[in-house]
Amino acid sequence: MPSEYRLKRRVQFYETDAAGIVHFSWYLRYLEEAEHALWRKAGLSIASPDATIGWPRVSVTFEYKHPLCFEDEFEVHLRVVELTNKTIRYSCDLVMGKISVATGSMTTACVQKGPDKSIKAIQIPKDISNLFQVWTSASTTQ
Amino acid sequence: MPSEYRLKRRVQFYETDAAGIVHFSWYLRYLEEAEHALWRKAGLSIASPDATIGWPRVSVTFEYKHPLCFEDEFEVHLRVVELTNKTIRYSCDLVMGKISVATGSMTTACVQKGPDKSIKAIQIPKDISNLFQVWTSASTTQ
Amino acid sequence: MPSEYRLKRRVQFYETDAAGIVHFSWYLRYLEEAEHALWRKAGLSIASPDATIGWPRVSVTFEYKHPLCFEDEFEVHLRVVELTNKTIRYSCDLVMGKISVATGSMTTACVQKGPDKSIKAIQIPKDISNLFQVWTSASTTQ
Amino acid sequence: MPSEYRLKRRVQFYETDAAGIVHFSWYLRYLEEAEHALWRKAGLSIASPDATIGWPRVSVTFEYKHPLCFEDEFEVHLRVVELTNKTIRYSCDLVMGKISVATGSMTTACVQKGPDKSIKAIQIPKDISNLFQVWTSASTTQ
Repeated sequence: MPSEYRLKRRVQFYETDAAGIVHFSWYLRYLEEAEHALWRKAGLSIASPDATIGWPRVSVTFEYKHPLCFEDEFEVHLRVVELTNKTIRYSCDLVMGKISVATGSMTTACVQKGPDKSIKAIQIPKDISNLFQVWTSASTTQ
Repeated sequence: MPSEYRLKRRVQFYETDAAGIVHFSWYLRYLEEAEHALWRKAGLSIASPDATIGWPRVSVTFEYKHPLCFEDEFEVHLRVVELTNKTIRYSCDLVMGKISVATGSMTTACVQKGPDKSIKAIQIPKDISNLFQVWTSASTTQ
Repeated sequence: MPSEYRLKRRVQFYETDAAGIVHFSWYLRYLEEAEHALWRKAGLSIASPDATIGWPRVSVTFEYKHPLCFEDEFEVHLRVVELTNKTIRYSCDLVMGKISVATGSMTTACVQKGPDKSIKAIQIPKDISNLFQVWTSASTTQ
Repeated sequence: MPSEYRLKRRVQFYETDAAGIVHFSWYLRYLEEAEHALWRKAGLSIASPDATIGWPRVSVTFEYKHPLCFEDEFEVHLRVVELTNKTIRYSCDLVMGKISVATGSMTTACVQKGPDKSIKAIQIPKDISNLFQVWTSASTTQ
């Protein structure tokens, strides 16, 4: 039952802006890439073609500490920090070597998709929630 | 029956890259913005929520002549240059004052979307094709 | 001295994702578009070609309440909520008619750019900070 | 002297649009990712922090044959197809297993960057052009 994922990543040119650094909106995408890699590690796709449930985002926060530049290699360390009946909350640290680049968090909710494109918050199905566990400092060393 | 659209646009910061200019992938999005504005001018949405047909892209070309920078104001002049049974072809000129910034073209095809997410090329419905006409040099002056 | 900006905006197709709604990373770009429009209203460019100072982001938060879909028309109401010696903090509300779509905040810091691409936090120059004021509920009615 | 690069890639969620497939603008970024990987293979960065030359794009073409969906795994096969005094031209094939997804091409030019942000087309420095060679069908088998 995975509780974390470490994604290695290199900055692409189209992720930079005229200030010469990665645009701050990209960090949310880095977090999401790690989330989807975590789900694959759990044997799941977060958005399979025939899915009747979805995972819209409830909230996100980011603190930016050190800029990223073209071709910088960094790591996204994503952790499941809360599992409720209806939501999953992740935290993440972006690091480049020993430099702390950014920290972030995101909460996502489980919804049922109606045929009319409506969505309704529902409880997370057990066959999904059972595949994840909340990260503890002991998790990494296991 | 519209055959062209002139979209006025300002460069956003997140469209620039570390070279200090708009990334070349953005020009396709500028063309698409003008396409969708042309469809709205014809009274249509190219992707209404209940649409059973779609418009995947067949091909695109762009020639880049002059860079665009943050906050530059420019115009996308889009024209319908070919209407076949199954496809629409557009050309566009991007200009900034008297400077030619870029020229491009795109062909898009009409497809039927199946319940299983399959797509199949179909003839463009008459109630759509009847709303557009091929641009001629006389069109602008009408 | 402006303290707020109301940006009207339509959702572009390339801002949507396979869930059929605007990807959550785009909200940060909507906030930034309103920020740069606020600066233009104050007679400034936040990133003029010859600028020796820059405005990297310190932190961002967003809460997502209602999805945005292709061609939805919405408004970003941005407000300056804090001005310190070295930072500016904004809040924003995204609304679609009477629907609250999202709320967000962002803090940005003033830095000096060195010739070697280094950056150093500095006090905001007076000729910039004097052009903005903190928004109060009375601001809107003035 | 490299003449080609094969980049393996997985579709990210933020690359898809409301039609459920990768937005056509992303293919240019896939091509660029492969270009920059080819340069790294040659021991170069196409945009090092202290570079006085740059590589703006002159033209691009793409033909789209088969859609890409979330989490699809595909390969970008980039080849140098022309080297002139001032430009490099690439072709690329995107394939997913035995399916041809798209074919594209891009021409990029070498420019000198002036202190005033001006650019001027120049001859490609020999220490760069000597590191690449034009791809031939024999190249792959070497």
